[in-house]
Amino acid sequence: MEFPKEEDFSEWYHKVLDEAQVIDQRYPIKGMLVYRKWGLYIIRQAQQYLERRLEEDGHEPVLFPVLIPEDVLGKESEHIAGFENEVFWVTHAGATPLERKLALRPTSETSMYNLFSLWVRTHGDLPIKIHQSCAVYRYDTKHTRPLIRGREFLWNEGHTAFATRKEALENIETIIGIYGKLIGDLLCLPYQVNKRPDWDKFPGAEYTIAFETLMPDGKTLQIATVHNLGQHFSKVFDITYADEQGGRHHAWQTSYGPGFGRLLAAVISVHGDEKGMILPPQVAPVQAVIVPIIFKDTEGKVRKEAEALKHKLEKHGIRVEIDDREIRPGEKYYYWEQRGVPLRIEIGPRDLEKKQVVVVRRDTGEKLFVPEADLDVHKIFSDIEANLKKKAQESFNHRIKKAANMQELEERLTTGGIIEAGWCGKQECAKQIEPIGTILTIEEDKKTDCVNCGNPGTHIRIAKTY
Amino acid sequence: MEFPKEEDFSEWYHKVLDEAQVIDQRYPIKGMLVYRKWGLYIIRQAQQYLERRLEEDGHEPVLFPVLIPEDVLGKESEHIAGFENEVFWVTHAGATPLERKLALRPTSETSMYNLFSLWVRTHGDLPIKIHQSCAVYRYDTKHTRPLIRGREFLWNEGHTAFATRKEALENIETIIGIYGKLIGDLLCLPYQVNKRPDWDKFPGAEYTIAFETLMPDGKTLQIATVHNLGQHFSKVFDITYADEQGGRHHAWQTSYGPGFGRLLAAVISVHGDEKGMILPPQVAPVQAVIVPIIFKDTEGKVRKEAEALKHKLEKHGIRVEIDDREIRPGEKYYYWEQRGVPLRIEIGPRDLEKKQVVVVRRDTGEKLFVPEADLDVHKIFSDIEANLKKKAQESFNHRIKKAANMQELEERLTTGGIIEAGWCGKQECAKQIEPIGTILTIEEDKKTDCVNCGNPGTHIRIAKTY
Repeated sequence: MEFPKEEDFSEWYHKVLDEAQVIDQRYPIKGMLVYRKWGLYIIRQAQQYLERRLEEDGHEPVLFPVLIPEDVLGKESEHIAGFENEVFWVTHAGATPLERKLALRPTSETSMYNLFSLWVRTHGDLPIKIHQSCAVYRYDTKHTRPLIRGREFLWNEGHTAFATRKEALENIETIIGIYGKLIGDLLCLPYQVNKRPDWDKFPGAEYTIAFETLMPDGKTLQIATVHNLGQHFSKVFDITYADEQGGRHHAWQTSYGPGFGRLLAAVISVHGDEKGMILPPQVAPVQAVIVPIIFKDTEGKVRKEAEALKHKLEKHGIRVEIDDREIRPGEKYYYWEQRGVPLRIEIGPRDLEKKQVVVVRRDTGEKLFVPEADLDVHKIFSDIEANLKKKAQESFNHRIKKAANMQELEERLTTGGIIEAGWCGKQECAKQIEPIGTILTIEEDKKTDCVNCGNPGTHIRIAKTY
Repeated sequence: MEFPKEEDFSEWYHKVLDEAQVIDQRYPIKGMLVYRKWGLYIIRQAQQYLERRLEEDGHEPVLFPVLIPEDVLGKESEHIAGFENEVFWVTHAGATPLERKLALRPTSETSMYNLFSLWVRTHGDLPIKIHQSCAVYRYDTKHTRPLIRGREFLWNEGHTAFATRKEALENIETIIGIYGKLIGDLLCLPYQVNKRPDWDKFPGAEYTIAFETLMPDGKTLQIATVHNLGQHFSKVFDITYADEQGGRHHAWQTSYGPGFGRLLAAVISVHGDEKGMILPPQVAPVQAVIVPIIFKDTEGKVRKEAEALKHKLEKHGIRVEIDDREIRPGEKYYYWEQRGVPLRIEIGPRDLEKKQVVVVRRDTGEKLFVPEADLDVHKIFSDIEANLKKKAQESFNHRIKKAANMQELEERLTTGGIIEAGWCGKQECAKQIEPIGTILTIEEDKKTDCVNCGNPGTHIRIAKTY
């Protein structure tokens, strides 16, 4: 979906989140919210999909405590410098002051790597590949937005240690592949993979790679990051292994994570339309809703048929509900359309006679009359997925634009999107560019003249970002 | 298992937790630990089983923030009195003091019911039945024990609001049934359901019902509780609904939760033996391990057969691994036995010739030679389950004893168990009893003479508790 005006998108977004009970925004702490059934189910699907793929790749699940002692969090200097203004501190238990402050984890590198140093002795203890699904806490002082920028957010974080830099780099490629599947295949979202400029990397990393998609107002949303940590943390936390000759070496590390709240925000916003959500079938809490059309004299038969169809679909692994509330069909349609349920199946007395069902696709609004025996819901779902991917990708593509000078850059960015341009590498030019849009990435191997000074430079991508 | 000496059990318990990598106890905050793969998988099974059953019963999943504002937590006076000494307080964000303190949730009644008051307007908004799987935080000053008594613990908590007391009572019966299935069927654990004495109820409840099992050292372990909250919280948080005549009434509420750490501790300890864990097949992270017996000349064939068997079992939904590490078979046997894997399947060249496999049950040590075509792993699993339940129940039953006087009470309790006795209802007699053992429950409708003074009284159960 595209909403060139940010306030229109914002209004649509809040309405959908509230009315479809995705979340409750009225929790009495700024930047913290309540996940309700509809939002949580979608997150659960994404989480389970991701966990399965990580575990197939040999990642082991773990769960670390939410609290990190001050001295552990503060051990790597760049890292703590990046987070110290954002950390929630526990200072008391009951009325008693604690001997040392405990941080709500803003991310888990330090608490995990502190134990990695106990887990790794020899080459045989490597690689370590672990992941955890949890919440992290950052006292972000920017304007908060539900699911997009908050102070408690749900994610999955992966952490590794390898014997060689080569293995760490291979792992990064594997993770980019897994995240690509999660974002592109499961959630049907278009995305770009951008290596961040050095000034925008994760605190303590060698470099950071980010995934972003485009929101309806044209701003990019960072939905996952992958960090090459090099040996920064392994040197500080003393994660060393003995090779076969007895020499000791520091491990090579990576860490990465997608944010589930942001994935949820993206899947709702990118695919949605004026009626509400349009959910990819694989993550829809309810994949098909059956609406029996009730008249007095045929009520029994129609209800029986609806039940029979429900059982049949459930046998094929489809999440299906019958809506037999005593409200008008039109109200039911509105209700399930807003919630993004991929398929509505209507059964009335005439359909019963004709041995057919009426199938309505949420993504196209298309109404199909299908002989019941021929109904292949899985086939329709894969058509819906293909259509969602295609539509979203087209919208994404046409919002990638070029700018040769500052005037073009400003103009193009008024409706958002990702701008391809050039930068000479000088700080004074970056200072002109960044108030207008954020430099997402610098592609060193591609030459383009600087959008500000016109001198030869390297290719960059610029966007307004969330 | 039974370990009448507490220190013997404690030694066994710590060794299993460490060596089988159930958890890591070396996290640098007292009472907080790291869940590792083996422990987390078992918890995941229990959690998913429970969530499925709660959702079938109409509970909706939610996730509330971990932080609760001080004024919200403090609203119900009995409740805050019960928890105020145990609360971890967040007081700062970065270097900035917060305007009001935020508690790490010790339990979620207050944060949830604060929103219930917004969710409930009329009769049609009821019932509310929600559940969340999360961690809660209590600064317990007693001696901590891994998984049993800590300061961060994993649980699932259910919360409800009903229009009538009758529905609330029915809900309590439903939950007792669901928890009974989780504990008794899935985890094969024997248990007792005890209504706690009034002085031992949940802060803010009308009464509390607890589930307990017996640990190998004879102490009881409370693994789940169910609270009838009456209208205590709905009056304080103003959860009211309009009936059809427009009259306003306060909702009736219940809350409940099993602790996943304690369930894990119980399943490890109750079923285990001197070799380590014996896991019920349904929750075992690996349900069957295939050990190929390798000789040079037949290696290819044996490996191929092992792979074929693995695929066949996986098709039947069994979690199976091949152990082809280059270590002695004996080491492999020890490794998987300690981890409680229900079934070991050995395949060697002679078995290949005879078209058989060698199957070894972890629970009985029984070795079976089974024609490969006849191998019915699901049948063996249900035999294992039945055997685990029977053995555990017998051990439980014979540790329920009677005591007619204080001398008998003390004697019986030296080896633990649950003591059936009587109590006259006078505080001075309770004061004699409770230093020896905790009164788990008072059965008002059953008459037994007081174990201390000999006067007529009601039946009670006493135990040393964790």
